[in-house]
Amino acid sequence: MERKTVYIAGLGLIGASLALGIRRAHPEIEILGYNRSEESRRVALERGMVDRVTDDFAAFAPLADVIILAVPIKQTIAFIKDLADLNLKENVIISDAGSTKAEIVAAAEKYLQNKPVRFVGAHPMAGSHKTGAKAAHVTLFENAYYIFTPSSLTKPGTLEEMKDLLSGLQARFIQVDAAEHDRVTSQISHFPHILASSLMEQTAAYSQEHELTQSFAAGGFRDMTRIAESEPGMWTSILLTNPQAILERLEDFKKQLDKVATAIEDKDETAIWEFFDRGRQSRKQMEIHKRAGVDSFYDLFIEVPDEEGAILSVLELLRGISVVNIRINEENREDTHGILQITFKNRQDLEKSAKIVRENTRYQVFLN
Amino acid sequence: MERKTVYIAGLGLIGASLALGIRRAHPEIEILGYNRSEESRRVALERGMVDRVTDDFAAFAPLADVIILAVPIKQTIAFIKDLADLNLKENVIISDAGSTKAEIVAAAEKYLQNKPVRFVGAHPMAGSHKTGAKAAHVTLFENAYYIFTPSSLTKPGTLEEMKDLLSGLQARFIQVDAAEHDRVTSQISHFPHILASSLMEQTAAYSQEHELTQSFAAGGFRDMTRIAESEPGMWTSILLTNPQAILERLEDFKKQLDKVATAIEDKDETAIWEFFDRGRQSRKQMEIHKRAGVDSFYDLFIEVPDEEGAILSVLELLRGISVVNIRINEENREDTHGILQITFKNRQDLEKSAKIVRENTRYQVFLN
Repeated sequence: MERKTVYIAGLGLIGASLALGIRRAHPEIEILGYNRSEESRRVALERGMVDRVTDDFAAFAPLADVIILAVPIKQTIAFIKDLADLNLKENVIISDAGSTKAEIVAAAEKYLQNKPVRFVGAHPMAGSHKTGAKAAHVTLFENAYYIFTPSSLTKPGTLEEMKDLLSGLQARFIQVDAAEHDRVTSQISHFPHILASSLMEQTAAYSQEHELTQSFAAGGFRDMTRIAESEPGMWTSILLTNPQAILERLEDFKKQLDKVATAIEDKDETAIWEFFDRGRQSRKQMEIHKRAGVDSFYDLFIEVPDEEGAILSVLELLRGISVVNIRINEENREDTHGILQITFKNRQDLEKSAKIVRENTRYQVFLN
Repeated sequence: MERKTVYIAGLGLIGASLALGIRRAHPEIEILGYNRSEESRRVALERGMVDRVTDDFAAFAPLADVIILAVPIKQTIAFIKDLADLNLKENVIISDAGSTKAEIVAAAEKYLQNKPVRFVGAHPMAGSHKTGAKAAHVTLFENAYYIFTPSSLTKPGTLEEMKDLLSGLQARFIQVDAAEHDRVTSQISHFPHILASSLMEQTAAYSQEHELTQSFAAGGFRDMTRIAESEPGMWTSILLTNPQAILERLEDFKKQLDKVATAIEDKDETAIWEFFDRGRQSRKQMEIHKRAGVDSFYDLFIEVPDEEGAILSVLELLRGISVVNIRINEENREDTHGILQITFKNRQDLEKSAKIVRENTRYQVFLN
């Protein structure tokens, strides 16, 4: 049997981590890589993530059994157009990694229709504060959702082949219609970004006339505007390629605001209280889903006394276990104990750590 | 000279911490306390925060040289009304600790006008995830803004007396007009709470028809909705007592959203990019002010390598120094190092810790 060849276009954090995941389950596969900038090409090659690299996208495409486009949305669409004119292997699978799906899938349906190729849109939902091939990690997609958005070009067997190819990622594969993907992400990601940036814009303008505005901003404001610091280019592309769903959420949100405004104007204490209480209740209910969700966080919650050294003593017990994050819970609580929240990479580390803390301390321990 | 008597009505986290701060600078002052529930009365008495306690507000008011109302907004207004009918000491100073100021100051101006008393509205801007006298701490207000909102009842010398009385808090005293206080806090606190709860409400409704909504919600969404879990009663009072400024921000925000909607409809890439970039730039500029602001955070940033044990080794160096929070910075960064952020209670601990880390590791260290 001929050696299978996978071509990954874009050796940034996502593309290079995909390469590592493919290598983990299928060391025999040949991996070719494209990247515009030299540094990620060099890193990917030096670290053995890929076997050969190019800065000419068209050069390797004819050699591939599977082509994965891991570049920005616009570039993804441009490459799909390029692929239509190249002499590809018959029955090649083409996939992508874009944050919005409907426009990319539509481009594939338009340019690749009637070609002897297969296509399946995909959105691996993971990220990091790090970028580039040098930040790639084989665990990046562990327990993360890897969303496929099948369409008419996703011929029978395509999904199964992709899942097998990507099995080393240990991701959660899920299928959803491209339009539905874009609707759901408009609500929980795209529109919230608009809210955060709008709040920041409004506050900056207000502070021109009210000089204490910047001084008085505290923790809640900080958290709400954190994502306003995201890279503008990526979010511009997202808004341009998912306009309908986002505009619909935006108009709906204005109606939500109008309802609150009416309650305030009417001095309707019950309506206002119920509004805040509903938000509180629905977020509490969401908590569970969230933790099992995209972030694939494995959290250990430990009720530590408010004493110097308590946190350190817990961390010392967990020496050698890789920790993703540590925070002292900031939510309002009714007791005098602090909640120490430690996030692990996987369930195994979480359970092992819970056991260690239970056996060696008298602190109450909760886990998800 | 007669021994001075301070009466603190409300021995929750705020009232009891005020008592501790007064004791620190003025151990000779007699402190009387009122609280409705028995537990905080008992704790405050047992721990020597107050000398005597009552559950009858009117009982101790005539004995006081200074009365501080540290109860919810509605109760504060009710107590101001009660005080108008009591036989208070001549020239007594009455102050409060409410989150909105205009209505409380207006109530004082109405009920206490032409009485031989002084009044100054106040908002000590600190809080905690803990509540009740048992969570009180003398450091709660250290470096926090303690906002006074003077009015016609704040006769000459009143502010100076209050600042001297509260000098043990080591807070930053600041004066601002009550209406301006309410405008500024509407922008950076009250209206953002409405945004967070509205986003939660909208998402809960959307998830009824789009079942993947809850699963796909990730870190950005979590941060934006964190404050939606706040206690509804307090926020209802805030909306009811600061309606004008909040409604004005709400209407202005809808116009902000309309501008973004227009840019999306027009597929105006430049306008969208500039919108996100402005948000990013203004938040970055705000960073400095924020850290010096309400939260009175003293942050140490350490560039730690992504290695197991690196965080623990830093914390071991800082053993014995009280840490407020620890987090691994989640913001997008261009390098492969993690940023470990450790928050201290005061500048002294911050500078001491920076020195220790610099002398004992090769990690890069930044501080604010």
